[in-house]
Amino acid sequence: MEVQLLDGERIDDLERNGYRIIQNPNGFCFGMDAVLLSGFVPSQTGGRILDLGTGTGIIPILLRAKTKSRDITGLEIQERSCEMAGRSVRLNDLENDVKIVRGDIKEASEIFGRGGFDAVTSNPPYMKADGGIKNPSETKAIARHEVLCTFEDVASQASKLLKEGGKFYLVHRPERLSEIISTLKAHRLEPKRLKMVHSFIDSEAVLFLLEASLGGRSGMKIEKPLIIYKDKGVYTDEIYDIYGF
Amino acid sequence: MEVQLLDGERIDDLERNGYRIIQNPNGFCFGMDAVLLSGFVPSQTGGRILDLGTGTGIIPILLRAKTKSRDITGLEIQERSCEMAGRSVRLNDLENDVKIVRGDIKEASEIFGRGGFDAVTSNPPYMKADGGIKNPSETKAIARHEVLCTFEDVASQASKLLKEGGKFYLVHRPERLSEIISTLKAHRLEPKRLKMVHSFIDSEAVLFLLEASLGGRSGMKIEKPLIIYKDKGVYTDEIYDIYGF
Repeated sequence: MEVQLLDGERIDDLERNGYRIIQNPNGFCFGMDAVLLSGFVPSQTGGRILDLGTGTGIIPILLRAKTKSRDITGLEIQERSCEMAGRSVRLNDLENDVKIVRGDIKEASEIFGRGGFDAVTSNPPYMKADGGIKNPSETKAIARHEVLCTFEDVASQASKLLKEGGKFYLVHRPERLSEIISTLKAHRLEPKRLKMVHSFIDSEAVLFLLEASLGGRSGMKIEKPLIIYKDKGVYTDEIYDIYGF
Repeated sequence: MEVQLLDGERIDDLERNGYRIIQNPNGFCFGMDAVLLSGFVPSQTGGRILDLGTGTGIIPILLRAKTKSRDITGLEIQERSCEMAGRSVRLNDLENDVKIVRGDIKEASEIFGRGGFDAVTSNPPYMKADGGIKNPSETKAIARHEVLCTFEDVASQASKLLKEGGKFYLVHRPERLSEIISTLKAHRLEPKRLKMVHSFIDSEAVLFLLEASLGGRSGMKIEKPLIIYKDKGVYTDEIYDIYGF
């Protein structure tokens, strides 16, 4: 199906199942973070998946391509992003499998009910509301800073939304790792699998990917690190694999 | 100074400052873990250092070679290990700079007083008292399993022993990372620097090295991973650097 593009928007090819996504370079475009998070979710994941703060819907669309799930929902508070996500779903003829819902992460368990999801994903705002340089664009500020919700809100909702034993997948910044682990544990989300993402093999981590299990036993694995570049400007084979080239 | 060797003991060269250590292959010999932990402590560390559960004294002797500190104490509960550590200190003529004290980690802050150390190190038992296959040798079981003290005991004592802003350096197993981060934070020990240790670049982590700061602000760095082997049986250059070859 073809859909209408609004001023400033463009369609990008996702290189998976022929899927495409509508983005606006003046708004918040999806980053490598969202792609890496989708790559971190196991392909055998089935059942119901919810993406908290889905933006323009990149994670639900990639998970529809990658996983067995045919019941994926993206929740987004910003009207414009939400509307673009809906059009991208239609553009890919995925209306049966992917739903986009406008709403507040802080109210997610009221919107969707408790304990109904097998997996929850989130690429949440990384920065504290008072930290870093705030983006002058409100759309970008909400996506990047904890203006409308904190990580505590995200973890609290994920805990309520998941079935017992359900999985929470998230991507975040290394500087907040210890705080995030504590917050997850406080909400019965036990970290089970952690993967560090480094730009180069000899540089510090720039992101981490984490899987937590609701009510899981203590005990985790730290996977082999994910290295983005093997040389300046040259991606590693693993990145090509994740991007599906 | 030459010292007497008891039955079954041998002297190993530490390849640093000509230092040597007495070990008994039937007891618990130091592993790469202790060497990596010493390598993780910054060379500019000065002031007073305490090593909790020092075994045969490997960490105090390596830290005497590496750091600026000339006031390093090793605490060890097992009589035999403690006595061997003392002989190794004399063997290297380090009696002025390195003290070995026999005692229980759980009573360390009573033995040494509160708030007196700039840095505390520990290569604690990795396994829960009821976890894994227990070593039939009691010496090894105490070194490897939480028979005589838990990580909670170690963190609680480190917190009491350190000066405000003092550093706690530890090595532990990935499966316990989330629990250890929570325990440290509960004792005001804020994780600041984390380094994963992988046998190969494409294998999961086997150890992690962590620096926490007493009363430190939240926010941490995840350093470049430490890879042990570049090929089967061939150490990476970083390992040779740490071993001081």
